[in-house]
Amino acid sequence: MKIGILGTGMVGRTLSEHLGSLGEDVMIGTRDVESTLAQTEAPRPWMQAFPEWHRANPAVRVGTFADTAVHGEVVINATAGAVSLDVLREAGEENLAGKILLELSNPLDASSGMPPSLTVANTDSIAEQIQRAFPATKVVKTLNTVNASVMVDPGALNHGDHDIFMSGDDPDSKAEVARLLGEWFGWAPEHVIDLGDITTARGPEMYLALWLRLMSSRGTATFNVKVVG
Amino acid sequence: MKIGILGTGMVGRTLSEHLGSLGEDVMIGTRDVESTLAQTEAPRPWMQAFPEWHRANPAVRVGTFADTAVHGEVVINATAGAVSLDVLREAGEENLAGKILLELSNPLDASSGMPPSLTVANTDSIAEQIQRAFPATKVVKTLNTVNASVMVDPGALNHGDHDIFMSGDDPDSKAEVARLLGEWFGWAPEHVIDLGDITTARGPEMYLALWLRLMSSRGTATFNVKVVG
Repeated sequence: MKIGILGTGMVGRTLSEHLGSLGEDVMIGTRDVESTLAQTEAPRPWMQAFPEWHRANPAVRVGTFADTAVHGEVVINATAGAVSLDVLREAGEENLAGKILLELSNPLDASSGMPPSLTVANTDSIAEQIQRAFPATKVVKTLNTVNASVMVDPGALNHGDHDIFMSGDDPDSKAEVARLLGEWFGWAPEHVIDLGDITTARGPEMYLALWLRLMSSRGTATFNVKVVG
Repeated sequence: MKIGILGTGMVGRTLSEHLGSLGEDVMIGTRDVESTLAQTEAPRPWMQAFPEWHRANPAVRVGTFADTAVHGEVVINATAGAVSLDVLREAGEENLAGKILLELSNPLDASSGMPPSLTVANTDSIAEQIQRAFPATKVVKTLNTVNASVMVDPGALNHGDHDIFMSGDDPDSKAEVARLLGEWFGWAPEHVIDLGDITTARGPEMYLALWLRLMSSRGTATFNVKVVG
């Protein structure tokens, strides 16, 4: 399948590497291809400079946000939530129309210190803002409640016995996303919880406030929650 | 132990009944004792009118918010978050000084429809507001992430294998609250997660947005989460 992944951060790279290893036709999207390919410094201490990463993952194509949206039969938003609307506008409304957008972003705002707050919360969500701005795109919010390593390998954590959430207005798109989460990463159907329409994305987005404190108190980002009842 | 429980709603009643049944000396607090004792209609379809409830729990004393704060060696805020600051002011800063306040409230705001949003979130929390307004009181946020029946009987859900959170500035008070959660209700120490100082209460308070959607999608309020890693 042709998959377009917007964002060359940790999430975009981890998904690209994993999906590329499955033989999917992956393009990873960035604002400025030349400058990304000329990157000499790692954007974060725990990451490689992009060219180094790309040499290890040569099958992953690199394109602009627009190239990537055109390429993908399914498009994944792996950009930071605070810039997602800008990135998606650059990707092009017409290039995203009619397609499923897996919306993975967290609208973190570190401008007032750590841990970050959210740029939007409580009475709205970044997923809703995206769905309103791109009405012809089928936005499905998912995977934002775990770090990249857990997204692509849930089985490595508690034998896969933990849950992921999904919000979106189109039932068929959610069914397809649930299928893809299983096929691509191994999320079992009983661990993909459909919360309802896109407004329910406020739940998993606001959960980030708890996730950030759990990360601090546990000293690791490799964890998740399981709903029991 | 003398325990003061502020609030005669579902949470206040459930805690009073449970702690009374353990032989604790419980007072339940309300704004206007006479009118509460004269209540003829159930405040919610699934609740009894207060006098009917009180006839079944005669050992629980009834007092004003101030009486209840005076009575309690430990005080529990079981009022709705949106009115908690008012209630605590009525309870009296001097009556709460030096005491542990178990802060259980959720600042729900249904004025814009259901599910409710929060009156405070993201860059502040009701727990922090209370701690700032009552600096001589040792505020410990806990139990707000589960419904009343789970609070008092965690063992009935998934054999007790699920987690509760705790936030507060005073380590000794948190240690005492963790002990009380075990002694009173059976929360095992390894399932009481200390998130850190009172600002970390933003996490469990904002989690309510997810809890509300999970309640809708599951069709029950009797559930909780377990952190796995």
